Amino acid sequence: MDQITVFSPASVANVGCGYDTFGFAIDGIGDQITIAKRSDDQLVLERSIGADLPTNPKENVATIAVEAFLNHLGSRAGFTFTIKKSFKPGSGLGSSASSAAGAVFGVNHLLGNPLDTKDLLPFVMEGEAFASKSYHADNVAPALMGGFNVIRSYDPLDIFQVPTPENLHVLIIFPDVEVKTSEAKALLPKTLAIPEARNQWANVAGVISAMYSADFELLKKSVTDFIAEPVRKKLIPGYEEVKRIMCENGSVGFNISGSGPSMFSFFKDANDLEGVKQEVKELYEALGFDLILHTSKINHQGSKIIS
Amino acid sequence: MDQITVFSPASVANVGCGYDTFGFAIDGIGDQITIAKRSDDQLVLERSIGADLPTNPKENVATIAVEAFLNHLGSRAGFTFTIKKSFKPGSGLGSSASSAAGAVFGVNHLLGNPLDTKDLLPFVMEGEAFASKSYHADNVAPALMGGFNVIRSYDPLDIFQVPTPENLHVLIIFPDVEVKTSEAKALLPKTLAIPEARNQWANVAGVISAMYSADFELLKKSVTDFIAEPVRKKLIPGYEEVKRIMCENGSVGFNISGSGPSMFSFFKDANDLEGVKQEVKELYEALGFDLILHTSKINHQGSKIIS
Repeated sequence: MDQITVFSPASVANVGCGYDTFGFAIDGIGDQITIAKRSDDQLVLERSIGADLPTNPKENVATIAVEAFLNHLGSRAGFTFTIKKSFKPGSGLGSSASSAAGAVFGVNHLLGNPLDTKDLLPFVMEGEAFASKSYHADNVAPALMGGFNVIRSYDPLDIFQVPTPENLHVLIIFPDVEVKTSEAKALLPKTLAIPEARNQWANVAGVISAMYSADFELLKKSVTDFIAEPVRKKLIPGYEEVKRIMCENGSVGFNISGSGPSMFSFFKDANDLEGVKQEVKELYEALGFDLILHTSKINHQGSKIIS
Repeated sequence: MDQITVFSPASVANVGCGYDTFGFAIDGIGDQITIAKRSDDQLVLERSIGADLPTNPKENVATIAVEAFLNHLGSRAGFTFTIKKSFKPGSGLGSSASSAAGAVFGVNHLLGNPLDTKDLLPFVMEGEAFASKSYHADNVAPALMGGFNVIRSYDPLDIFQVPTPENLHVLIIFPDVEVKTSEAKALLPKTLAIPEARNQWANVAGVISAMYSADFELLKKSVTDFIAEPVRKKLIPGYEEVKRIMCENGSVGFNISGSGPSMFSFFKDANDLEGVKQEVKELYEALGFDLILHTSKINHQGSKIIS
């Protein structure tokens, strides 16, 4: 096999209380990456569709991650990449994680799967580290492996997954404004008072318990964030109004996706979604921003081969 | 019915990472409280066995809690209490919570159960607040209701329970040294850096997931504490040695119980317990401290009527 096309999903990190800890994959949006073997040892981004990605292989998250992987293998293989993005970098949906995860996943396959998918994670994180200037796994793990992931430890890296309720629906709300991850990060407090931190981890416990027990009332209360939401919501036009619309219309958990501007909202009943989408559309029409709405369930597969 | 005897169990709070958040009840040790109706409106502690408890009803956690309950009901009933403790106050096993929970639970029963057990919690917390100078529910909730409890929120009070693996055994190790809760509290940091707090809540997620999935490897890794253990372990003679004995002999989670000096250790196999107990006995004989060892499973009943 000399060419492959991979789909690597978008993902929602933080999930309210689980700052730098929780991340889940969604269905239907993400990166479609075509990878072809080359006769030389170059990594070439031939084309990017849907975003203007850096073509220098030292500056592109996908090729940086693949290079780390090839170095680990001691391989001198070369590949040409075409990346088609269904959402832009800077959307808060793990764009760089999708590109890095899909590229490494596809290259591993073209090389005959020398590593198990989960063991690709450290290389994918190299790409992500370039994009975010620090090691994060909360988008990378779901983009690669799917599911609802918990990064228990970064040193050593230790990740586990929790089951999610069958009827859990996710609405992604992406107003087209730019929120720079670095700017969103700079707003965060450096320390937390113990009682504040306690409230955060008590909600973390609530989200995990709710995922296992399908307790949507507990989920709704626990998807709460005392750290990032209070400062980052100001970067997202219409945030409070969207939150109000969700709260009043059956959402069982709403917050910022990653560092925004995308937002996510959980629903237990797909019938609640249509009215809500209409209200949000009208809101952003009035505010004068383009808007993408996407509904999904939790994606438990992660990166996959589509041809 | 004019007289009742109630058993209210000891409990383990914090459970490693879940500072002020997790608490579970144990079997076999706790307070045995006999309560008799009086013809006047007095609350009288007639006798305490196993500890020298304050007889002034304004200074005893049991009578303070009962008084709060009676005030809520608008009742002018009076009761005489005899409290027999199987462990001392200051042991780190929720002594005041056992007394307060058992007393209120028993009085509720003698009054014909005007409230459901879970609705007694705020009054039990009044007693606990007197003992610890602040509102805590991590011993009170398990002493009253049993099980593994998570205090999701203090304001408003919101508690949920998670299931625990059938074969989870608990070893309680109580060396007879005094650790004052106030002293143990004063040692704690006031703030946490975000990365430290993140590690704490990632482990909180791990403990909850492990309880649902019976993943003992995850449990062992997640029962870790970055806040209290590093400073409080110095107050407990032999702590590091006990931890080493546990780690080397099949423990699937070890830490300080509450503010100590008691410690708890989880095991998935009761056969591992005997050898471990012998080693700990020898350790504390050499150190010159009396020692109580107690094995239990998680108690899912909480306070109960025994006669």
